[in-house]
Amino acid sequence: MEKLVFQNGVKKDQLLSAVNDDHGGVIVELKEPMDTTVFQNMLKASLSKWKLQGKKGVWIKVPIELVNLVETAVKEGFWYHHAEPHYLMLVYWIPETENTIPANASHRVGIGAIVLNEKRELLVVQENSGRLKGTAVWKIPTGIVEEGEDIFEGAIREVKEETGIDTQFLEVLAFRQTHKALFGKSDLFFICMMHPLSFDIQKQDLEIEAAQWMPLEEYAAQPFVQKHGIFKYTKDLCLVKAERDYPGFTPVPITSFFDGSTSFLYFNKDGLDQESSAIHL
Amino acid sequence: MEKLVFQNGVKKDQLLSAVNDDHGGVIVELKEPMDTTVFQNMLKASLSKWKLQGKKGVWIKVPIELVNLVETAVKEGFWYHHAEPHYLMLVYWIPETENTIPANASHRVGIGAIVLNEKRELLVVQENSGRLKGTAVWKIPTGIVEEGEDIFEGAIREVKEETGIDTQFLEVLAFRQTHKALFGKSDLFFICMMHPLSFDIQKQDLEIEAAQWMPLEEYAAQPFVQKHGIFKYTKDLCLVKAERDYPGFTPVPITSFFDGSTSFLYFNKDGLDQESSAIHL
Repeated sequence: MEKLVFQNGVKKDQLLSAVNDDHGGVIVELKEPMDTTVFQNMLKASLSKWKLQGKKGVWIKVPIELVNLVETAVKEGFWYHHAEPHYLMLVYWIPETENTIPANASHRVGIGAIVLNEKRELLVVQENSGRLKGTAVWKIPTGIVEEGEDIFEGAIREVKEETGIDTQFLEVLAFRQTHKALFGKSDLFFICMMHPLSFDIQKQDLEIEAAQWMPLEEYAAQPFVQKHGIFKYTKDLCLVKAERDYPGFTPVPITSFFDGSTSFLYFNKDGLDQESSAIHL
Repeated sequence: MEKLVFQNGVKKDQLLSAVNDDHGGVIVELKEPMDTTVFQNMLKASLSKWKLQGKKGVWIKVPIELVNLVETAVKEGFWYHHAEPHYLMLVYWIPETENTIPANASHRVGIGAIVLNEKRELLVVQENSGRLKGTAVWKIPTGIVEEGEDIFEGAIREVKEETGIDTQFLEVLAFRQTHKALFGKSDLFFICMMHPLSFDIQKQDLEIEAAQWMPLEEYAAQPFVQKHGIFKYTKDLCLVKAERDYPGFTPVPITSFFDGSTSFLYFNKDGLDQESSAIHL
């Protein structure tokens, strides 16, 4: 019969519930309130067992309600992997070798929307806040793609929110990668070509000072837009798209072999279709 | 003269050091060890003052060494914003209005590298782990772009690490966005065209089972590659690039107006150059 050892009223060899991950590690999801001493003893006993089993990474997901257990885990050698508003993910690496724990998300994703109407007018805004506040610079609507949102959806939503204009997404014309942005993370910004489906502007008051349809030449003639980095290229792309067909990347739905889920591949569809047909003739 | 109130040996109106952010909020960086009671009193007094001042978001950055203070902040109503291995960022919203606190990074960024040599051979690998382990499927080298790394740098590094081959980056041919990947985050995967600068394969043993130069037709004839989503499109893109010039997006350095930093804009350079010249004539 198993010999039970009690200390502070806790069976010393009581273990944390864990499931295996796909990489030789284990994942613990704490759910019930627990005394810190009980947790410490269970964690020590569990770590001993996982070491004997040759486990690698150990993950502990702690809901914010159980914040009292975080300090205990850190004292046992765990460190932070990532956090979301309602939980903290702690991690520990058992082997002597360098850890191969994957990094968390590294990029934010933003969009800028070129919405050109048939009168060669561009949908432009002036912002209430940020670095262009008070400069009277007219710019294209921009925004951040939300978690779980597709780039084309984010672009349609942001244009609607800022200006009230409904649009159809056509193509990604260019994208920019920058580093050391908000919270030290990187940023991917996609310049999107959109076709307007409505024309009456209803501007959002919170972020937008003014919004209008502006003749493309007037937009392009702004000194700020003439000179600088992404503003200059955005102006060039607007002019090109008003003239003829600079080829961008179109979103096409594809199905995952592994789980049947649908996602979108953005590429030069006309380029590939023409070339593919030519090759297979 | 100011009236001082002491409780538990702490001056009750002692305040946390904070700096203003650009959006009407304040940022506190905890650096020195502190008793939890001292911290609690300082935090309560500071929150009262910030409320009177009409501050909005309150950020507290807690290094992992000061983990003992986390529970106290959560009890005062703070929640998690994000975490990195060595710190946790807590946040609180003072006004009655809905909070406009920006989300943390939402995407991981990966690359797949098409490396074609002049004999119409493609650089391909078989992986040691993951979902294609043991399937004998030959695939292009893939990997995750590191924090702060440019997409083209990541592609060059991954090809070198997995196969020992030096490459020059040419273009992004396509990209895919997926959701609910690792830790529930989204994923952007860029298919990159590379020109080989060396030919002797030195495969990495940790992740790669086998690596070789494979005739393009042999690669394309694999049943797995014929059928499925991104694998099929990658095969089509390889064939197109071997035949003629499907236009992709080329990275071009641009300079930020705001801070003079350099980043890269990826776009159809030939398309824009031709069109721009035409327009400006």
